[in-house]
Amino acid sequence: MRVRPFRRVPQHKGSRAWKWHQQESDEFEPFESRLRKGLWCPPRLRGRDASVIEEVNDWYFAMLHDRQRNDFYWSALGRLVKGKRVVDIGAGCGLLSLMAARLGAESVLAVEASREMCTLARLNLQRNGLADTVRVVNSWSCDVALPPQERADVVVSETLGTLLLGECAHLHLSDARKRLAKPDAVVVPACGTQFARLVMSPSLASLSAAPPPEACHGFDLSATNALQDTAGLYFTKDRGVRLSSLTDLTAMSQSIPLFSAEFGVTEPHDIPRSMTFQVEAKHSGVVHAVVTTWEAEAPGGGGPVLSTDYESTRGQPWGFFRDMQWGQGIQLVEDFDAAPRLASRGAAPPPVPFQVVEGERLALTVRLSHPDRMSIQFRLQRARDQ
Amino acid sequence: MRVRPFRRVPQHKGSRAWKWHQQESDEFEPFESRLRKGLWCPPRLRGRDASVIEEVNDWYFAMLHDRQRNDFYWSALGRLVKGKRVVDIGAGCGLLSLMAARLGAESVLAVEASREMCTLARLNLQRNGLADTVRVVNSWSCDVALPPQERADVVVSETLGTLLLGECAHLHLSDARKRLAKPDAVVVPACGTQFARLVMSPSLASLSAAPPPEACHGFDLSATNALQDTAGLYFTKDRGVRLSSLTDLTAMSQSIPLFSAEFGVTEPHDIPRSMTFQVEAKHSGVVHAVVTTWEAEAPGGGGPVLSTDYESTRGQPWGFFRDMQWGQGIQLVEDFDAAPRLASRGAAPPPVPFQVVEGERLALTVRLSHPDRMSIQFRLQRARDQ
Repeated sequence: MRVRPFRRVPQHKGSRAWKWHQQESDEFEPFESRLRKGLWCPPRLRGRDASVIEEVNDWYFAMLHDRQRNDFYWSALGRLVKGKRVVDIGAGCGLLSLMAARLGAESVLAVEASREMCTLARLNLQRNGLADTVRVVNSWSCDVALPPQERADVVVSETLGTLLLGECAHLHLSDARKRLAKPDAVVVPACGTQFARLVMSPSLASLSAAPPPEACHGFDLSATNALQDTAGLYFTKDRGVRLSSLTDLTAMSQSIPLFSAEFGVTEPHDIPRSMTFQVEAKHSGVVHAVVTTWEAEAPGGGGPVLSTDYESTRGQPWGFFRDMQWGQGIQLVEDFDAAPRLASRGAAPPPVPFQVVEGERLALTVRLSHPDRMSIQFRLQRARDQ
Repeated sequence: MRVRPFRRVPQHKGSRAWKWHQQESDEFEPFESRLRKGLWCPPRLRGRDASVIEEVNDWYFAMLHDRQRNDFYWSALGRLVKGKRVVDIGAGCGLLSLMAARLGAESVLAVEASREMCTLARLNLQRNGLADTVRVVNSWSCDVALPPQERADVVVSETLGTLLLGECAHLHLSDARKRLAKPDAVVVPACGTQFARLVMSPSLASLSAAPPPEACHGFDLSATNALQDTAGLYFTKDRGVRLSSLTDLTAMSQSIPLFSAEFGVTEPHDIPRSMTFQVEAKHSGVVHAVVTTWEAEAPGGGGPVLSTDYESTRGQPWGFFRDMQWGQGIQLVEDFDAAPRLASRGAAPPPVPFQVVEGERLALTVRLSHPDRMSIQFRLQRARDQ
């Protein structure tokens, strides 16, 4: 799991993508040092890696409960690994390596940067009688080297974030495929597509704006809206919001495929830094936000698809766990072109809501962070030809 | 709002409570510097304080929408401030100061450490025609000094966290009452009580444990449970969980009042560092977690009460916003006394679930962090006299 220091890091945070090789995988802060003075540390947790404990309890356990995700990998590996060499990038507690071994892989190399997780993965392998097939290596995948005869036929990894490329799956899978796998190796997942959709939701919008006077004892608090963040994407899980439980969420556009990545092949420079999509408003109203979701597919297609769309997770027994792991990205929308142009900053101009009428043509510009393409930013405008 | 750098900081994080005076309130990171390379910063947000923008969009806007909270302050101030001098500690965008001014206060001193928020508070005061009554001071409250004749009759503040004392309301209100208010000054809220309740919820427990083999293609992943955190309290909002939307949550005990604080009077050393409560199991089953909630009251009592209990927020129109601001604290429970005593750490002993039978007597030990009493930690055991 330690190929994923990027999970749930929105674009506000500094990129650590290019600092992998500077990190020492055996440096860590012990759990007890994060407890405030006066609190007790159970012996079981003493000396363990605090940041790994935090990540595992925050989203990793939830991920292990996502049955449809597990079925996706079980099904894909079942068609690919019999008699093959497999490498698992960011193996965590070893579930995907266990699957590959049980499904008949000749050998599995499980690469995991957290020493803590490697220890537990080895225990899990022993308890399942598969320790002879799987070798656990405590390293960042970019620091592992393999001679040609030991390279893998199948590269498997689950390093997808709330954003498709938010954990740099494209970076370490293209690196792993080049250096740790045979030239004709197959990668699981094979590819993924990042989507975006315009939505209207008064309750979602209320979370990011001051209340109107009639809802707040008559007070005009509109100056506060100068701080409304319409430039950054936030992750639903970080704010405690589950889109599938909002009762007033209306899709204001189709789900728009922004770009696709072929894992193991796509390099960051294969994805444009900026793209503009023509979008038609499905309803009249206000576009409050852009919601990001993604889909990932197994090699050969035809099998189950992994999706973070809130329409896919709603009502599913595994939906709760998927939302507690990935959720969706949300960027608030404002009508920048309608903003008062001459307003001084001292006047704290508030963002102007983006009103649309049904059938109106809009232009959604998508920017990706450079050079990693990990983060996404949207800007909605009226289509120019209207 | 900048008296609250502590909001939503669970006990894992280092205390900044004693570093207030070292902080410079006009040092900040501009918003654009947190955007990844390649992304665009709207002119409206350029040069603004990034951490204030993050806090305001994360929970502050949600808080302003909590009508029952606003009504609590409106009602309490309405009975107290006519013709009086008021000081508002951590004034944020100025809502409580606006209320006091509109309700007839002679003067209001709004103390706010964020320069950004002070600017917006002044705009809000102008827009509501109350700028003559309210003076905004950009400072930490502990750095403000007032001559005796300018001291306040009423101290108002909303610096409550997910934990009652999690933002150090007790520290800065006792300081403010001593130095910025008259000896007989009234504080709003007057007092608060911290509660805890034992709960059973398989879905909540699943978020913090590996799935059993039958739910995960037959694999035994139990070694991973060595990382289950049963020592730290997490905040529901931080993990994306809303207790009021869990369908399998059962109260396994009464709601237990742990301690009360009289704001402006209670000092940290008035609250014991450790307490043990006798608790009776209401049902047979597993105690998965302890949930913390609090209640706060206005001076004189009798008016509305502020509560973070998920039973209070469920189904209320303001419940969503309260959960998006405060939510609850959760600490997982394990049966430490039933843990294998001789297990070596290498064997990664998993936590033992805490099974109870209806009517069983239990002992809940509560530890508070020292010296601030900001954080709480629980340990559940069988009552010794059984």
